[in-house]
This record gives sequence, C-alpha cells and structure tokens, in this order.
Amino acid sequence: MSLRQRAKELDAADPLAHLRTQFAIPAGKVYLDGNSLGPLAHPVRERMQQVLAEQWGEDLIESWNKHSWIDLPQRSAARLAHLLGTQADQVLCCDSISVNLFKVLTSALELQHRTEPTRNVVLSTQDNFPTDLYMVQGVSEFLGQHACQLQLVEEEQLLASLSEEIAVVLVTEVNFRSGRRLDIEKLCQHAHQLGILVIVDLAHSAGSVAVELERWQVDFAVGCTYKYLNGGPGAPAFLYCAKRHLEQNLKQPLQGWMGHAEPFAFTPDYVPAEGIQRFLSGTPSILAMTAVDAALDLFAGVDMQQLHQKALAVADFFAEALENSRWATEFTRLTPTQHSERGSQLSYSHPHAYAICQALIARGVIADFRAPSYLRLGFTPLYLGFEDIVNAFEALDQVLSNAEHLDPKWQKLQGKVT
Amino acid sequence: MSLRQRAKELDAADPLAHLRTQFAIPAGKVYLDGNSLGPLAHPVRERMQQVLAEQWGEDLIESWNKHSWIDLPQRSAARLAHLLGTQADQVLCCDSISVNLFKVLTSALELQHRTEPTRNVVLSTQDNFPTDLYMVQGVSEFLGQHACQLQLVEEEQLLASLSEEIAVVLVTEVNFRSGRRLDIEKLCQHAHQLGILVIVDLAHSAGSVAVELERWQVDFAVGCTYKYLNGGPGAPAFLYCAKRHLEQNLKQPLQGWMGHAEPFAFTPDYVPAEGIQRFLSGTPSILAMTAVDAALDLFAGVDMQQLHQKALAVADFFAEALENSRWATEFTRLTPTQHSERGSQLSYSHPHAYAICQALIARGVIADFRAPSYLRLGFTPLYLGFEDIVNAFEALDQVLSNAEHLDPKWQKLQGKVT
Repeated sequence: MSLRQRAKELDAADPLAHLRTQFAIPAGKVYLDGNSLGPLAHPVRERMQQVLAEQWGEDLIESWNKHSWIDLPQRSAARLAHLLGTQADQVLCCDSISVNLFKVLTSALELQHRTEPTRNVVLSTQDNFPTDLYMVQGVSEFLGQHACQLQLVEEEQLLASLSEEIAVVLVTEVNFRSGRRLDIEKLCQHAHQLGILVIVDLAHSAGSVAVELERWQVDFAVGCTYKYLNGGPGAPAFLYCAKRHLEQNLKQPLQGWMGHAEPFAFTPDYVPAEGIQRFLSGTPSILAMTAVDAALDLFAGVDMQQLHQKALAVADFFAEALENSRWATEFTRLTPTQHSERGSQLSYSHPHAYAICQALIARGVIADFRAPSYLRLGFTPLYLGFEDIVNAFEALDQVLSNAEHLDPKWQKLQGKVT
Repeated sequence: MSLRQRAKELDAADPLAHLRTQFAIPAGKVYLDGNSLGPLAHPVRERMQQVLAEQWGEDLIESWNKHSWIDLPQRSAARLAHLLGTQADQVLCCDSISVNLFKVLTSALELQHRTEPTRNVVLSTQDNFPTDLYMVQGVSEFLGQHACQLQLVEEEQLLASLSEEIAVVLVTEVNFRSGRRLDIEKLCQHAHQLGILVIVDLAHSAGSVAVELERWQVDFAVGCTYKYLNGGPGAPAFLYCAKRHLEQNLKQPLQGWMGHAEPFAFTPDYVPAEGIQRFLSGTPSILAMTAVDAALDLFAGVDMQQLHQKALAVADFFAEALENSRWATEFTRLTPTQHSERGSQLSYSHPHAYAICQALIARGVIADFRAPSYLRLGFTPLYLGFEDIVNAFEALDQVLSNAEHLDPKWQKLQGKVT
C-alpha cells in the first residue's frame, strides 16, 4: 500500500478528524508550526467579532458585569483545568509566562524561607527555555543571591543534582528544542522527599500532552496558550498553584488591584483575595482573553490521552517516512523515540536546517528552525491529518531532490545563523 | 438663547467635531464614561478583523516578521510619544499598569540605592489609585522596609512632605476620584532639588490632557490605554523612562526574553537590550496591541492642548447648566474649577449618587459611580459634543424631577454602597 493510501485509511479512522474543519488553515498549506503559534479557529474569529461589536461596541462599560468580563481569567481557567488534570480553583489565565513565573517563583521561595531561610538554590536545566532562566536571574538580582541563586545542570543530571540546599526545581516538561518530555511525576517524588518545591513550565505541554498536575503532585506551574491551545499570537498565559499551598496564605510581590479581596472598595491597603485570585495583578486584556477562552472551547470533550496518542502516531508516520527514505542519514534525530519521553514535536539536526526550512515554507509546508541547526516540526492533532504528513514529506523529498535548499538566497542566511 | 441653541452653535464651531464619526457610540446614548473605558472606534474594529483574518489566519507564524508584530510595542510607543511630550525611544506599550509600575519602581529604587542605599521612602498620596499603592506594598514586602517603605500624605501636603529620606515620589497626575490635576512640573522641580525621583501615573492623563514628560523633567511614568486612548477593555498599558536614566544601565527584575539584547539567540544568560526595550518581559498579546495601535491612529494630527481645551469647555458647559438649575445645592463639586487644576472629568458628591447614576444609565446617559457618594462624569472630546451635554443634563433634570433615583431597586443598593 502506498504511503498516501495508508494515510487516507488512517484519516478515515481518526475520531478527531472532524475538528479540522474548525480551523482556518490556508488552502494548500501544511502547518507544522502549531507548537510556535496555533492557527485561528473559526469560533475564535466569531467570538472576537461579537465581543468587539456587541460587547465593547454596544454595551461598553456595562460589559464588565453584563458579559462577565470581570470573571474571564477564572472562566478560561476552568476550561484549562480539565486539560491540566486539576480544578478551576487552582488555575488562572493572565499576563505572560514570564510575569507568571515571577509570581510563582517568588511565592515558592517565600514559602520555603518561612521555615528554611537558607534554602536559596533554584535548580534548572541548561537548555530550559531562556525566559525562564532570565526570570530566575531577575529574582536573584532583586532579592539577592542569599535568597535566590540559579544553578543549571543538564537534563540528564536533574535527579542526581537534587539536594537539601535546593529550594525550587524549575523545569519545562517538554523541551522547546529537542521535544524531549521529562517524567514530572518522578521528579516531584524525588524533589518532595528532599523538601524541594517543583515549578513546571507547560509551554509545550498544555493542549498537547495529558498533563496531570494533581496526580503528579506538582507544586506550581505556568504555561502558554498561544501554541497548542491556539489562543492567538502572544495570548495571555496561565499559572497553577496546588491547593495545599494556596491554603498557606501565599504572597507574591505583583500585588495589583485585581488580586485584592475587594478591588472595587478602593482601599489604600492591599488585602489579598482568597485562593488563586491573589495571583492576578492588573486589569486583563478582554480582547486577548476572549480569544483564549473561545479557543479553549475547541477542547471541550476532547480526551487528552487520545489527542496525544494521535500526535505521536502522526509524528511516527513522518519519522517512518523519513527513515525509509534515501535522506535518512542526512538527519540526526534529537527527539527520543519512546512515546513516554516526548511531546508532540520532532526535531532533527541537519547542517542546512535553516535553508531546508525556508525551502519547505516556499512549498507551503510551514516548519520551524531553531539555531544553530534544528528543524522543528510540530504535530498538532486538532487540525493535522496523516495525509498532511504525506504532503509534508513529499515536499521535503522534492526540496532535497532538487537541491532547492542550496539556493544562494537561503544559503547566505544559513551561513549567518549557524 | 436656549441651552440647546448655544450647544448647536458650539458644535458647529468645533474643529474636532468630525472625529465623532469614527466612533461606534450606540444610538441614543451619551457616553460619559470614557474615563473608565473608551468606546470602540470603527478603524479599530477593521484593523482587528484584518489582523485576525489576514495576518493570524493566513500568514500565521510568518506575521511576526511579515507584519512586524515583533515591533508592535515600539510602534505603538511611537504613536504614544507625541501625546506624552516625549520621543519614541523612551516609551513602551506592554503589560498592565501594575506590572509596569513594578518595573519602573524597582528600577528607580535600584538607581537611588547605587549612591544612597539608605533612601528608602516611597512617598505617595492617600487617595492615589489603589493598585499603585498595592504595588509599592508588594515591593516593600519582598525587598524589606529598609529598601522600600511606603509613606502616604494628603495631596495638599505633597510638596511640604518632600525630604532627603525620600527615594521616590509616586503620584497620579489626575486623581481618579476627584478629577483634580497636580502640577507635575512643579513637583519635579522640588523633588529633584532633594535628589528624589518622580514616577507619574498617567492613567487619567494620557489622551486627555497635554502631558509634557520631557519638559516637566519626569523621571518615570506609567499609564493606561483603555480610558481616553480607547485601546479596548484592559488594553496593554505603557511605561516611560527618561533618556538620562536609560543611559545608566537600568535594571528591573521582570527580565523576560523580549527584553533580551538577542531574544532569538536563546542563550541562557540574560543580557538586557539597549534602551527602553529592556523593560519588555514576556511575549505581548498581538490582538490586544493591535487594538491599541489602531486606536492611537485617531490621535494623529490632534493637538493635545486643543483637545484638552475642548474637554474643559464641554465640562464647563455641563457645570454651568447644573449650577444654574434648581438642583445646584444638592451636589457638592469635588473637582477644582481652575482649568490648570483638572483633567477631563467632573466629580460631584451626592447622597444618592449611586441611585442617580443608575437612573441616568437607564435613560441612556452612561455615567460612573465611585463609593461612597461620587458621581463621576468623563468629558472625552474626541466623540462628545456640546449637544450631548444638553441631553445628559436634561436626563439628569428628568431623573431628579421625577424622583426616578428614589426607585426602591436602586435605593436598596444605594444603602449597600454608601
């Protein structure tokens, strides 16, 4: 059976295939970059128009109550919670990942310092997404090294590096470059035995893998809604705090009025709201939050295990095609093969990765490049089918067969990025 | 001449009257709440549809370069700069006021502590907008009282309270409750003589009064785009930092990747970008930023002195009608009468303010209430004319003549809020 014939059969049997019609994928394109920016869904566009014209346009200021704008961070959080294996009262949708990480990190450190003021190390991985490391460095400069000191190790050394000097372990579940997935449950078990709190960045997990924050006993998490959750470019992020910590009267320095127990009492003293609400700071953008909220509707009824299984199957289908081709030896796979050790992306190293990526884009296959030499392919099962993969692979085959990637216009830039 | 006849003549002579057609003000409504949430403008709605359908929808991830999404915080800042009396390289549009205030406050304190580590007082006013005070309290809790201590005085005592123990004065130019405008230039002169840095919250100034950040020698500022700038509910805020400070290698703890010198190099160490860019943290919402950017276009070519003059004239027109009416003695005016001492709102105290506000809204006049007893009226000259004021005043006259505000449904709540 031809590759395409197999793809058609797999698509016909795919229980998630119908979701594709919800998305505005441009005709003729295969979009393998949903791990960077999720596409526009039709219901998102419709809801945006409604909020613009009917709510902001017609009802104006009254919409804060009439259309419950004021509750949007918690309403979106409720939709998110079921994708993250937790409850609505432990999640908030607001601000950026960076800002939310600042909140949960300072909060976690303050919690540790109540009983152990000398625990100051924040352990993370060398290849964690840089903004996470920058934020720790910012906290470190702000509070001083005695309160917060960043220590970096290789992913493989993480468990072996845990010790009682460590206050917080900060990891990203699925690595943005390699697509490798860490065993967060195991990390939490080891960390907790040593009194360490665990903060997980779910940027490449939420909407992609079956996250189980409560079962894994994660302490804090942050994540992104503009990748696998399709909330729009730069969409508001989310944060999670375990209930057992929320009950400890947590503090975080970004004490804005929306996190106040009575925001509209306009009293001069800050009194934090009960529960997760105290992690809100300023007024959230209703336009940005609306897109997230509408995008999350598409996950209603979707089983995350099933979704991730499809992502793995689609990725495997691509990997198999590549491995069986004459190009196999040119690519070095970075992503583990084990299903339990990866998210929904595959990364390959290739000396001409940048130029290949550009040549693929010219052919309508939107892939991603990460310096110095990584081709990054996102397999986002809400809107990708197996036949898309055949199209993507055939495009790659054409690019390499015709040596399109050796075009000087791309090679010139290839030289700059490597 | 009747009030309405005078209004018609004033409207006919108003050089800004044509701007009204740009806004989607619902038919039959007089919107006096643009100081809380600016209305939707038609070009904003059009640009949102374009960004949704054509940019996000069609060009997807490529839009970051193709449509310069990556530069949006600076592009909007350039449009803002001319409204604030400064240059594009000293302004950024991003995050919320609360988060931006955290950045500039920690930055200002760090700058002071380089030479005078014992200056720890942040002086503000008792009736400043609460989120500003909450954020100072947050910084204080995390850095300790030795580094940051909030001291509150009455607005009238501000100049007399300046001393060499004070590191930073934090004020809001136009008070959210009373509408009173402070003399920021004079404050800066007095503060600078004592080595104090001045942070100004422009939430009720930007787009309303002729702000002159550079001429006044303001050190730092933050402000809001969802009131007089019509950027949409909860729209991204802005921040300003004077060039003379930007040259001092400023630090702020919210070190996110968008503020890195090379965000896409993905290196593990934070290296701040040159200039104002280092005040960026996480990825900005492009949908939210688009609305702000499009809304700012409406100010192109508008002279801020002229705009504020119109706001004052419209407000005076209302005040005169009220003062000449039989209701004059029922209302106590909070807002100063002097033009130099106010922004674009009038506030009146009335024992039934809440119920009057509700009865006005029922008649299509959207006013605002602030506890315990303030009726707050915003005079936003981009889309309000003098005849609107006649309509608003006639509605007020009807409400009071018919005792509509004594309706039990509003009185019940009136009892709760006072």
